[in-house]
Amino acid sequence: MSSEFGEKIKVSIFGQSHGTAIGVVIDGLPAGERIDEAELQAFMDRRRPGKNRLSTARNEGDVPRFISGVENGLTCGAPLCAVIENKDMRSRDYEKLKFVPRPGHADFTAYVKWGGMADMRGGGHFSGRLTAPLCIAGGIAKQILSRRGVFVGAHLWSIGGEEDERFPLYPDEALFRAVAEKDFPVISDEAGERMKAEIERAAESLDSVGGVIECAVTGLEAGFGEPMFGGVESRIAAAVFGVPAVKGVEFGAGFRAAKMRGSENNDPFIIDESGNVTCEKNDAGGILGGITNGMPVVFRAAIKPTPSIARPQRSVDLRAKTSEILEIKGRHDPCIAHRAVPVIEAAAAVVILNLLSEGK
Amino acid sequence: MSSEFGEKIKVSIFGQSHGTAIGVVIDGLPAGERIDEAELQAFMDRRRPGKNRLSTARNEGDVPRFISGVENGLTCGAPLCAVIENKDMRSRDYEKLKFVPRPGHADFTAYVKWGGMADMRGGGHFSGRLTAPLCIAGGIAKQILSRRGVFVGAHLWSIGGEEDERFPLYPDEALFRAVAEKDFPVISDEAGERMKAEIERAAESLDSVGGVIECAVTGLEAGFGEPMFGGVESRIAAAVFGVPAVKGVEFGAGFRAAKMRGSENNDPFIIDESGNVTCEKNDAGGILGGITNGMPVVFRAAIKPTPSIARPQRSVDLRAKTSEILEIKGRHDPCIAHRAVPVIEAAAAVVILNLLSEGK
Amino acid sequence: MSSEFGEKIKVSIFGQSHGTAIGVVIDGLPAGERIDEAELQAFMDRRRPGKNRLSTARNEGDVPRFISGVENGLTCGAPLCAVIENKDMRSRDYEKLKFVPRPGHADFTAYVKWGGMADMRGGGHFSGRLTAPLCIAGGIAKQILSRRGVFVGAHLWSIGGEEDERFPLYPDEALFRAVAEKDFPVISDEAGERMKAEIERAAESLDSVGGVIECAVTGLEAGFGEPMFGGVESRIAAAVFGVPAVKGVEFGAGFRAAKMRGSENNDPFIIDESGNVTCEKNDAGGILGGITNGMPVVFRAAIKPTPSIARPQRSVDLRAKTSEILEIKGRHDPCIAHRAVPVIEAAAAVVILNLLSEGK
Amino acid sequence: MSSEFGEKIKVSIFGQSHGTAIGVVIDGLPAGERIDEAELQAFMDRRRPGKNRLSTARNEGDVPRFISGVENGLTCGAPLCAVIENKDMRSRDYEKLKFVPRPGHADFTAYVKWGGMADMRGGGHFSGRLTAPLCIAGGIAKQILSRRGVFVGAHLWSIGGEEDERFPLYPDEALFRAVAEKDFPVISDEAGERMKAEIERAAESLDSVGGVIECAVTGLEAGFGEPMFGGVESRIAAAVFGVPAVKGVEFGAGFRAAKMRGSENNDPFIIDESGNVTCEKNDAGGILGGITNGMPVVFRAAIKPTPSIARPQRSVDLRAKTSEILEIKGRHDPCIAHRAVPVIEAAAAVVILNLLSEGK
Repeated sequence: MSSEFGEKIKVSIFGQSHGTAIGVVIDGLPAGERIDEAELQAFMDRRRPGKNRLSTARNEGDVPRFISGVENGLTCGAPLCAVIENKDMRSRDYEKLKFVPRPGHADFTAYVKWGGMADMRGGGHFSGRLTAPLCIAGGIAKQILSRRGVFVGAHLWSIGGEEDERFPLYPDEALFRAVAEKDFPVISDEAGERMKAEIERAAESLDSVGGVIECAVTGLEAGFGEPMFGGVESRIAAAVFGVPAVKGVEFGAGFRAAKMRGSENNDPFIIDESGNVTCEKNDAGGILGGITNGMPVVFRAAIKPTPSIARPQRSVDLRAKTSEILEIKGRHDPCIAHRAVPVIEAAAAVVILNLLSEGK
Repeated sequence: MSSEFGEKIKVSIFGQSHGTAIGVVIDGLPAGERIDEAELQAFMDRRRPGKNRLSTARNEGDVPRFISGVENGLTCGAPLCAVIENKDMRSRDYEKLKFVPRPGHADFTAYVKWGGMADMRGGGHFSGRLTAPLCIAGGIAKQILSRRGVFVGAHLWSIGGEEDERFPLYPDEALFRAVAEKDFPVISDEAGERMKAEIERAAESLDSVGGVIECAVTGLEAGFGEPMFGGVESRIAAAVFGVPAVKGVEFGAGFRAAKMRGSENNDPFIIDESGNVTCEKNDAGGILGGITNGMPVVFRAAIKPTPSIARPQRSVDLRAKTSEILEIKGRHDPCIAHRAVPVIEAAAAVVILNLLSEGK
Repeated sequence: MSSEFGEKIKVSIFGQSHGTAIGVVIDGLPAGERIDEAELQAFMDRRRPGKNRLSTARNEGDVPRFISGVENGLTCGAPLCAVIENKDMRSRDYEKLKFVPRPGHADFTAYVKWGGMADMRGGGHFSGRLTAPLCIAGGIAKQILSRRGVFVGAHLWSIGGEEDERFPLYPDEALFRAVAEKDFPVISDEAGERMKAEIERAAESLDSVGGVIECAVTGLEAGFGEPMFGGVESRIAAAVFGVPAVKGVEFGAGFRAAKMRGSENNDPFIIDESGNVTCEKNDAGGILGGITNGMPVVFRAAIKPTPSIARPQRSVDLRAKTSEILEIKGRHDPCIAHRAVPVIEAAAAVVILNLLSEGK
Repeated sequence: MSSEFGEKIKVSIFGQSHGTAIGVVIDGLPAGERIDEAELQAFMDRRRPGKNRLSTARNEGDVPRFISGVENGLTCGAPLCAVIENKDMRSRDYEKLKFVPRPGHADFTAYVKWGGMADMRGGGHFSGRLTAPLCIAGGIAKQILSRRGVFVGAHLWSIGGEEDERFPLYPDEALFRAVAEKDFPVISDEAGERMKAEIERAAESLDSVGGVIECAVTGLEAGFGEPMFGGVESRIAAAVFGVPAVKGVEFGAGFRAAKMRGSENNDPFIIDESGNVTCEKNDAGGILGGITNGMPVVFRAAIKPTPSIARPQRSVDLRAKTSEILEIKGRHDPCIAHRAVPVIEAAAAVVILNLLSEGK
């Protein structure tokens, strides 16, 4: 078990940042589902680096090539494989890093685990680049979910100390779409400007900064998920923690709940205008006892600051066992949180499509 | 997939709060491991309700009975099953709740999922009582781990806004043991008094309060875990979110990392006095790229306030589709976070023992 | 992964032959399913030893006690646990076997695997006795399947060289029931007499004999199962080989197909009287490309002769590394194939219920 | 779960016969393992069609291209992906088959399962062509196993009624190699001539014929595998039944055991010349209680006759619900059993490498 998740629908991700190609196999997709390649590309492009200082200069131009599972634009039931060839790689930059691990990266742990055989050019299999194939899977899942009335959307909730608005109680598809179409994926553009300024400040000081992403899933009926370890929280968290740089996941009020009184945190049940049972508010994040309660599923993921920074850092030479001062050259984002927004959507979408496929 | 987790060592939990019995099957334990029943009982007793206002009056006196997998005090290789008979149940209290779901509980979601057939007396299979069998599994895992030099410990880090100290950079077994032996599992007794006062205040206002638990695993070599979805964070989070009332999980600096600069968050590598590569600090929580880096694995879990409160709450009648005012009788904890401390240790211990059993 | 199988519905079996108890946890059963305990007991009794020379004298009188998952005779959604207490054990008989492994048994492999800690009294966890909890799971699965129009039946097809009739092209529930009600589970009683005589002959020569069981599942629509390793054949075979003493599994024509011409083996498609597509015959055993084709699923399992025989056998002392002549005392069946008939049904029923629960 | 198997090392197969490409992802391979591409190609070539009447004319020339997981000829720890581009396809031949399913093929079941969206050109994902990626995985597994002293070999044991010799009690690597290097993979060339004549006879009558493959694994210590459903038999059978056209699997004496006396079938334990415990013979096929006993693991797989035959066959039109006479054009093997020999080795090798990776 490693670069794979999902139960009925399995997503298996392969590739290294500077290898021949990266890609994904999706086994178990329903047959006859149209894949809108333009929409998928638009989704993929949301995680691409931009043209300004906020992102790296490497222009990946990632266009997935479907080599199985799709015929005439429709899933055919067989496992789907999509591949993105790597190009525009500058591996020279990474040669010297092999024995001087970058702090905050997986260089050291991969070195230990794989006995020095790891291909860590550009971060290798641990690179944020591997989130591109996850976005292929998630983008397809989102398209299938939307046909079932289920929508997955996310926004950048904070950068450093600068915060966006929270999602409203019932975020709708229009809001998701509006955020997705922005260059900077926030609800409040004013907050977005403050966040961008924060990223600029980090960049100016040759540093980086982290952020928090808020994600919501709407249109999901009550009754999906299982008690205890088969709960929706367990399954989303396991997928989202598989995204590089995620260090925290919380549902509904999350860590804030730990400071609340029960009378404050409990979501009262009410009868809505259609006569259905629903909740007055959503501090549970749409999940009670691991099972969806019909409210939007809402969670947040903490993204650590990009570990690659231009400042000199203290590290060691793994062979000589000596202290070293490491200066990382190359192209690096001062922040990856805004680029990770569609990635978090992707991870959530695959989990939710699995839940739907399994049935209640 | 539901009330089960683990790969090489599978833990499968069964039972309802007011059913005949609760218990656990552990399949895949190494053979020949001594189970110190007194030590296990001491561990189990840490989650038992106390004798004061801080916990419910129900005296569970949970003593596991091993009905398979143990011979002469040693694991014999066959799946281990341990059972705790239920007693001292007052199910009458719950009869009227069947169609009026308690806010914050799984009553409604279980009702939807299981078509009204759910046995929800005392919370049924969703009850915190089901953490007792998890503690059997975790307590056994802890004993096995300790023989391999790996120790798992936790403390109550906060109640409401009152906070304990954080674990030191290298918590040791003595600290774990000292916390475990206290009536109230904190590092700083002064902080503990403030927390207990906070629980008292919640109780006095017929309310409840949440908290945060900090857990650490020491003695784990670098190299355990897999990239992406097989990472240690994914696996611990999936297990810990399976514990009722957990709404957030974070590793190392966690959500705080989102507010940090990269230069601040990155843990510099150093050579320690024994000539080994290690980190100067531990904001990564011992995990880089999903793989252990040899530092203690450190994570925190947010526990929501007990949903059962004595105050009247708004709910609905699921059949009549009418609004109802619900008053919950019976015995309920104003806080469960302190009782959940060994439970979080248990979930972590099972994951870590799996990692060790799988090898690097 | 060990004594557990199933995907959406997981069956986890525990216990040792001469331990405190044996039992099963079934996680993922649909809620609201009635468990007819009398019918279940009748099913369980089919694997019980009889009162004549054909079976051992140990009277197990296995009555499962449900300790979770069942309320008022209905499944409640929570994991079901059923336990059978062991009694009438004569462990003395096995003491001397600990270091002199019985040929054909798991004594030696368990000794190696579990470092001599294995509890092998009566065969321990490897005993045929562990098929009793499998029958609990299978018996419940059969009841649920029958409500969906799916029936699982089996008969003893051969003992030594003596053969019963094969199932007709479309075996029906009445035939399944008729076989199940017989003391000796065959279609043709005349063939049954020949088989029983063969068992008697084996018993008279202080020996044992094997047999083949044929099992069929009717009422299953086309479209269940997945291609390749998720195929129905893979899943049934994995479950059935988990039954002690099974050494071969074949579907439809099976090994006979290897001797056939394609024109002979292919099942022509026809339109039946209701206008549905079906097959003229069933040499595929109801499965094409791993997926059900709407014909009955038919397979056979080869059961080896009981390894415990009264004749002296050559073995070794594992500590002294010396040759030994082993004489097995105690109660042993000259044949277990007839008792294994419901066990094979049980394994198949759990697989099929999983397929139905997953959907097409 | 579908076109994937393995636990610690997962093999996920994708592609359709006439799609863009076929391939495999192998997740969890140990790092630093050399992949001898020439040896792998030689292994792959063993399943390629030959130049005579015994195989189809399509010249696949399958050369895997590694797009991840291999650097400088060594596995690097990251998931390995290998792709084979499809070429020399004549899909026209299959157009008319879409609504007239070929008997013995998965056309009908795929049609039902995937609602007519299945890409069944050339058999689609169900084609024997998908065994090429399985051979990539298996060929790599074999290379890794051989470095650990474990060897996997197979031979064609029978075609129709013509039989080869059985493997000797201890087949060695030299024998495996000798068989592998032959054009026709048998032990006895004289038997091979009889088998080839049988295939010729089938071809002359516009028909096909099946066969049985015998496979052995040597060098495996005692103690691998788990009791019951985690047994070696369950795991090998699940993998081997995932190979198209396999209809039966048996271990050791297999179905023959059902006709044997216990005194005949039991393998006496002896002390070998090195003072180790071993067996005098191997009717258990190297497995007792699901666990290896140190003898070679030996099993046989029944391969049905190629369903594609030139003779007219009865089928139906799935839309018109009318009877049809189907004549299959195109290139088809009169027998696939000899080509399936390395495929069975491949399936077994992946299972065995998993067992070794998991440890005892």
